[in-house]
Amino acid sequence: MKCAIQLGIAAIAVGAVTFCSGFAAIGPKPPLRIGKVIGIRPETITEYKRLHRGNNCAVRDLLDKYHLHNFSIFLHEIDGKWYEFAYCEYDGDDLKGDMAKLSAEPRNQKWMETCDAMQIPLRGETSWANMEHVFHNP
Amino acid sequence: MKCAIQLGIAAIAVGAVTFCSGFAAIGPKPPLRIGKVIGIRPETITEYKRLHRGNNCAVRDLLDKYHLHNFSIFLHEIDGKWYEFAYCEYDGDDLKGDMAKLSAEPRNQKWMETCDAMQIPLRGETSWANMEHVFHNP
Repeated sequence: MKCAIQLGIAAIAVGAVTFCSGFAAIGPKPPLRIGKVIGIRPETITEYKRLHRGNNCAVRDLLDKYHLHNFSIFLHEIDGKWYEFAYCEYDGDDLKGDMAKLSAEPRNQKWMETCDAMQIPLRGETSWANMEHVFHNP
Repeated sequence: MKCAIQLGIAAIAVGAVTFCSGFAAIGPKPPLRIGKVIGIRPETITEYKRLHRGNNCAVRDLLDKYHLHNFSIFLHEIDGKWYEFAYCEYDGDDLKGDMAKLSAEPRNQKWMETCDAMQIPLRGETSWANMEHVFHNP
């Protein structure tokens, strides 16, 4: 009887964790959710937006190739400076390795050169800064 | 023959748009991708993170109820101030109506009171500021 009660409590606990965390106990591995931030030179925003429109292939295929999906970029002004905020999901098994391979792609290098000239890394950074992920609900 | 060539060109054009924009010509309506930003009082970050952990139900069920999915929050410091960046996807048909209903939920009001005390809206804002969405790749 005690065991049955304990099992019942355990089942409730697992149910609560599953419900609250939003992750089912079984199913595919959730992706790594990545958030990044970098400054953008305000005088380049029109051109930056043109380059990122849906009709420009850019390096979209390379993002797919290296497992970066559901990739969004947003712009906003904070205290008189403009920033870009990127969100994407990585579903590969070797983020460091895949990012090294992406960086080595000549077409990505050319694209980064174009974008780098429009961007201002945050103090102490050389490119996009990684943000801390503190909440997720599916 | 001319018609066949034109049809061929049209097919290539549709294919290119489908490839580059990342949206297939048919299929479910893509969600509205929402990005928001707000300041956070640094002394509250530990408690904010505790409240947003996966084992706290918070208002997760209400986000689902009003069609806000794949909801992430990130934290980062910019020029000595701390900010929260939220990303989520709305798949309902009436964002304004759904947000009004969410705001009217007593449990959400209590949750917002708790969070509001930890947050600092950007200059000119009263709550989270909406960012401009400029890029998406699936």
